[in-house]
Amino acid sequence: MSNGTNVDNFENYIFENPFKGEPSNLYDAMNYIMQLGGKRMRPKLLLLSYRACGGNSFDNANRLALAIETFHNFSLVHDDIMDNAPIRRGKKTVHEVYDVPTAVLAGDNLFIKCFDLILNSQIHNTELLKEFTKMASLVCDGQQMDMNLPNQKQILEDDYLKMIELKTAVLPACALKIGAMAANASEQVADSFYQFGLNLGMAFQLQDDYLDSFGSEAQIGKQEGGDIIENKKTILYIHAEKNLRGEQLEEFKTWYNEPIRDQNMKVERVRHLFRTALSDVYLTEMKEAYEGKALEALQDCQLDETNRNAFLELFNALKQRVS
Amino acid sequence: MSNGTNVDNFENYIFENPFKGEPSNLYDAMNYIMQLGGKRMRPKLLLLSYRACGGNSFDNANRLALAIETFHNFSLVHDDIMDNAPIRRGKKTVHEVYDVPTAVLAGDNLFIKCFDLILNSQIHNTELLKEFTKMASLVCDGQQMDMNLPNQKQILEDDYLKMIELKTAVLPACALKIGAMAANASEQVADSFYQFGLNLGMAFQLQDDYLDSFGSEAQIGKQEGGDIIENKKTILYIHAEKNLRGEQLEEFKTWYNEPIRDQNMKVERVRHLFRTALSDVYLTEMKEAYEGKALEALQDCQLDETNRNAFLELFNALKQRVS
Repeated sequence: MSNGTNVDNFENYIFENPFKGEPSNLYDAMNYIMQLGGKRMRPKLLLLSYRACGGNSFDNANRLALAIETFHNFSLVHDDIMDNAPIRRGKKTVHEVYDVPTAVLAGDNLFIKCFDLILNSQIHNTELLKEFTKMASLVCDGQQMDMNLPNQKQILEDDYLKMIELKTAVLPACALKIGAMAANASEQVADSFYQFGLNLGMAFQLQDDYLDSFGSEAQIGKQEGGDIIENKKTILYIHAEKNLRGEQLEEFKTWYNEPIRDQNMKVERVRHLFRTALSDVYLTEMKEAYEGKALEALQDCQLDETNRNAFLELFNALKQRVS
Repeated sequence: MSNGTNVDNFENYIFENPFKGEPSNLYDAMNYIMQLGGKRMRPKLLLLSYRACGGNSFDNANRLALAIETFHNFSLVHDDIMDNAPIRRGKKTVHEVYDVPTAVLAGDNLFIKCFDLILNSQIHNTELLKEFTKMASLVCDGQQMDMNLPNQKQILEDDYLKMIELKTAVLPACALKIGAMAANASEQVADSFYQFGLNLGMAFQLQDDYLDSFGSEAQIGKQEGGDIIENKKTILYIHAEKNLRGEQLEEFKTWYNEPIRDQNMKVERVRHLFRTALSDVYLTEMKEAYEGKALEALQDCQLDETNRNAFLELFNALKQRVS
């Protein structure tokens, strides 16, 4: 990668630019989550669209990319508090290492630092800030929708899709759009990047749902069937509940409504019922439809061959991922 | 008040401009805290400095003022979670009415809406946004310092003063500076407003500390001596511990270190010991020194008579307040 961009090695940029300040326990907590790893997909998307649209000030683009990754980490810290999650990426979550109050504040301050980074990037403007702010609010809405789901008597497929759109897909969409905006792309190109990211994000989350229910422990690096064990109402659940009949529907409901001792048996039987209802096929077709829409949007991004290939490479890696 | 400003009735503006969105429980939680009342001192300060510096677009200034009040409410929601506080302004706190996860998100989204409001104010610019962002991060630092205090073996007066500066005083300072910046005041005038607000904020917090320990329940509308009962290490504690000697110091330490059954007796005796050490006098002199510095800074704000009188009226009201 030329031009001083960190597309392929954004990890280094994060470690070279820790957040600095006092009190040290607050900043340690912020840097702890930032340095916990991950695919760094979102900042990479921003840098790719920035480069594709002719941007050449990668010092500034790196700050925007770090803002996007910082926002993602802010949401992880607060989500983990809300979900009472002890583990993130195989390590203790921030509120476990420190405490809940420090984790609340570390999240708050990470979010503040996003604006600091954007405002110190010479390539920002009001429209870009509005785009970022709109995205941030939508992600909050999505997280609240997700928290509300278990209390809803019936969950419609559209509700679920809206929730994953807000909670997961608007962030990569915004990352791509901001990269394009920062490189002064036309509104049409910036919007096409947004659509590419939105549909890619939807496909990504559906693949996540698939792997969580059907992937092996070796593949996904965590307990198999976690969503099934936790009674999460994903697209697989919504589809199966709607399409199973008679004894199979009764069995399905029993697994989700009764206390279960043998969780392995539950995972095995629910997987079987998902397959019986063709819910796995349904999810896969839906995912492929989003992938198709993503590729369509990519056509409108006015890419030269080098950049189109870079995006297709990333697209295929995400499509074929098994973890 | 002319010119469409809401200086004296900002309360109405808040009720006329609730946050709107879905899911409704998230936005209900956000509006619940916003509509819980309070002095609305911070937005009022912003509008006063904006007017004093010749600003005349009060539609836009009101958005900035609402951003400042929204930031204050964001910090209250998260602080109440961290402090596990059940009551705020005589009503249940957000996490009590809703739940902790919703309160975390409501705080997050309130903070996001600050930027939304600023960005939709036609009188913002990059420097103003940077000022707001810097303030926000300092308030976080101050809250973490406050949370760290109980774990510190010895608390220096300077640590305590730095903590209240960050946690309490930078917000009114920033409100005044942003009002001036939005009205295109000179950097010197904007900085003088900042110093006025910072010193006013320090005096305000010291008066708060005084009232909390010495005010009657009728005055302060809550249990007398709350800080004493909760063993809070305010400036009174720090001064008394440093200046008491012999048996009096022993008695003082006993009240703070041993389990206490008779809290009324504790409040009475600790008040007596504060007075013996002249800690109340010390606090009052310190407060008056900050008030003096605030008035000095006000001299440099280039105010005409009308505006000087408006600020002095507010200053005297704050100075003489007993609640």
